[in-house]
Amino acid sequence: MTAEEAARLIPSGAAIGMSGFTGSGYPKAVPQALAARIEDEHAKGNRFKVSIWSGASTGPELDGALAKADGIDFRLPYNSDPIARQKINAGTMQYFDMHLSQVAPMAWQGFLGKLDWAVVEVSGITPDGHLIPSSSVGNNKTWLDIAENVILEVNAWQSEHLLGMHDIYYGTALPPNRVPIPLIRPDQRIGEPTFRIDPAKVVGVVMTDSPDRNAPFAKPDAVAYAIAGQLLEFFEHEVKVGRLPRNLLPLQSGVGNVTNAVLSGLMHGPFDQMTSFTEVVQDGMIEMLETGKLLMASATAFSLSPEMAHRINAEAERFRGKLVLRPQEISNHPELIRRLGCIAMNGLIEADIYGNVNSTHVMGSRIQNGIGGSGDFARNAFLSIFMTPSTAKGGAISAIVPMVAHTDHIAQDVHVIVTEQGLADLRGLSPKARAKLVIERCAHPDYRPMLQDYYDRASRSSYGLHAPNILPEALSWHQRFVETGSMKP
Amino acid sequence: MTAEEAARLIPSGAAIGMSGFTGSGYPKAVPQALAARIEDEHAKGNRFKVSIWSGASTGPELDGALAKADGIDFRLPYNSDPIARQKINAGTMQYFDMHLSQVAPMAWQGFLGKLDWAVVEVSGITPDGHLIPSSSVGNNKTWLDIAENVILEVNAWQSEHLLGMHDIYYGTALPPNRVPIPLIRPDQRIGEPTFRIDPAKVVGVVMTDSPDRNAPFAKPDAVAYAIAGQLLEFFEHEVKVGRLPRNLLPLQSGVGNVTNAVLSGLMHGPFDQMTSFTEVVQDGMIEMLETGKLLMASATAFSLSPEMAHRINAEAERFRGKLVLRPQEISNHPELIRRLGCIAMNGLIEADIYGNVNSTHVMGSRIQNGIGGSGDFARNAFLSIFMTPSTAKGGAISAIVPMVAHTDHIAQDVHVIVTEQGLADLRGLSPKARAKLVIERCAHPDYRPMLQDYYDRASRSSYGLHAPNILPEALSWHQRFVETGSMKP
Repeated sequence: MTAEEAARLIPSGAAIGMSGFTGSGYPKAVPQALAARIEDEHAKGNRFKVSIWSGASTGPELDGALAKADGIDFRLPYNSDPIARQKINAGTMQYFDMHLSQVAPMAWQGFLGKLDWAVVEVSGITPDGHLIPSSSVGNNKTWLDIAENVILEVNAWQSEHLLGMHDIYYGTALPPNRVPIPLIRPDQRIGEPTFRIDPAKVVGVVMTDSPDRNAPFAKPDAVAYAIAGQLLEFFEHEVKVGRLPRNLLPLQSGVGNVTNAVLSGLMHGPFDQMTSFTEVVQDGMIEMLETGKLLMASATAFSLSPEMAHRINAEAERFRGKLVLRPQEISNHPELIRRLGCIAMNGLIEADIYGNVNSTHVMGSRIQNGIGGSGDFARNAFLSIFMTPSTAKGGAISAIVPMVAHTDHIAQDVHVIVTEQGLADLRGLSPKARAKLVIERCAHPDYRPMLQDYYDRASRSSYGLHAPNILPEALSWHQRFVETGSMKP
Repeated sequence: MTAEEAARLIPSGAAIGMSGFTGSGYPKAVPQALAARIEDEHAKGNRFKVSIWSGASTGPELDGALAKADGIDFRLPYNSDPIARQKINAGTMQYFDMHLSQVAPMAWQGFLGKLDWAVVEVSGITPDGHLIPSSSVGNNKTWLDIAENVILEVNAWQSEHLLGMHDIYYGTALPPNRVPIPLIRPDQRIGEPTFRIDPAKVVGVVMTDSPDRNAPFAKPDAVAYAIAGQLLEFFEHEVKVGRLPRNLLPLQSGVGNVTNAVLSGLMHGPFDQMTSFTEVVQDGMIEMLETGKLLMASATAFSLSPEMAHRINAEAERFRGKLVLRPQEISNHPELIRRLGCIAMNGLIEADIYGNVNSTHVMGSRIQNGIGGSGDFARNAFLSIFMTPSTAKGGAISAIVPMVAHTDHIAQDVHVIVTEQGLADLRGLSPKARAKLVIERCAHPDYRPMLQDYYDRASRSSYGLHAPNILPEALSWHQRFVETGSMKP
């Protein structure tokens, strides 16, 4: 059927499970047709809103179009669309920001309510009626299993040779029926290459031919290379003292120019036969696969530049043995992250002198994207690293503050903080020892004396001296930024 | 040898792994002898300090005596001793507050440094040279494995019939050699009843006959019973709507009078054939085992009243089949907590209107005890519940505040907050929906209008309206308490 016909089936108030993770594998036609329909209904004065559940972020054709139409009442578990973000921060869209590993189990648990619809992009349908996943897996297995009605988008742009790259594990359950997940190496396959689907639930199939709207490659700058340099030196040190194997441990990394600099550093560094157990596969990992530095990558989605996405589609057969895409409840599963001993490398908005990290709430109230999988990885990683330039907005914001205005990662889950200024290895240290290192090593020189002054005065006047603080000043840098546009006095 | 002879072996600067978890199974003689020696050395003007690693809290003969002697330089991973707490908050003792599941793996990982000594209490030594654990397991397996020198305290007070109650798992490893932990039911045994020990490392055996210094039973008051009542009603509702099985799921609970009220409620409630997968076994669990309401309890330690401890020692044989004590890296393992789908019930210091929880830092800077196992359980539980009276210090402190002054548990890990005022089920809700519930259901009437007023004004003036806040006021309740002794204006 057409996307318009499919969209007409979906009523206002529906909870819709959409495919899509980091701008790949999301449905491209039905959400736009639904947005058009919502705009029509709104023009007629009718209320029309839906709840959108996804894997993680999607693309402008989905979150962007539906948010622009004022069609989203409630959104989970992650968003990076600028229009949706604006609505959330204007208080007109409800957003439930979740650990990505927990979305599928919580959907099964039932408190999120009934999932009425699934709209899922696939690469194809096999002759025996199984679905070939596309460029992300996300929560698709779960949406297809629990939704009452299913609409499929079969995207001709996605390569048919993706068949065999995915590993869809059907062994999860609700307690008390859970069993160990039998994965002990990142390259292991424990599931099936396709999704199962009850054909009776499929009420529509829409043919499309549209590219994923991937972000362009974020080119590292000097600051990103400086951060990467600090980190590579640290890895070499850890290998030297025997705390990391020579091929490191399975890598997890976010996206962006700092990550790209780190991957580039690893590509030209001394470590071989590396593996990756992560959420998303970026350009740099593909390049490392080609040179053999990286043996394989396990993830739940691609997050590639348009050029690299084109190449993967053209050469999917060649990469199939080195890439595994899994459901996000597996790619991000605490059991597996801890077992494999991942090295987690994530970005942040700000860290405080004691090592607590804010990944989500700008100035404590305005959400940026969401916690995503960072909590799954940071808490369970063998090494949990947070990387950031020491300042933002041309120096008006310090990434190191007296107290974070919102906490996503508690100090226990933050082993290393690295900026272009330096690296602080916080493992095993008391709060005061952490503060000393974070101020000395990570803060920008413009803010270092201010932080030191805060800490020194706190150490004289604080209610307790375990983690000294000056409550009336702790969030004053953020307030100054809100009032003046800069954290500097 | 005598305790004094053993203590003389330990040099200043040593890192010592002590047995002990929640006031049970800690060494009672050597730490006191060491404290006496330290006082002597200090009197002579010599520096003498040691680092103390443990399972969790110990007793006055260990933390109390050594802290009083100013003998502890560095302490991990948990403390509840009042003298040690005072030193930590005076800034004279370094304290590294850790997730209890991570202590053993991090000790193996190496960044904590070398463990020079282990001082471990046991119930006995088998003819073939294995050690019979006493009333807690904690990190003893790891201390015995990695310490260079071992001193054993064989405590005649501990029942020899404890043999067979413990389950010491020897299958953990560092990555990349980790494998699934083969436990799928709380009552399963996957290890050995005794500790292995290299006799060449044992430099001293000290005989003792001293009781664990357990805390007296904390009798629930009306507030505790009201909290328990709210919670029991919620469990019944969840069973009714099919979100919990009729025998619930494995229970985890902290200690204290609120927990005791909950256990008493469960004892007389409609649920049968329950199980427990927790850190500590309290009096209430023993009573539930006796009536058959609870089939079995898995933990890493006892935390019993002196009367109940006496009874367990006298009747250990009878209870042996229903109790399993495991290393804390197993009792608290994220893999197992998520697999079993525990119902986690923990206390807190304060929660904010958005559902973030502070479990450790009074007024943001003064540590109470530590995060303990609450993070292991809260993040991975099927249901993560935090329970607290709505006020403390005779009403001068509100347990519900605009913003927590320190975060231990992020809102994603806090499913339910319950006070004597009511219960807020926060699952699946946006921050604003959470704030509405927390204020309406959980706050004390004395503070409810203040919270509502804060939230209303924040909703008009906040930088972002995802989680509205007023930065200069967010921590003002805490500051008011510090200045005036009350959060009330």
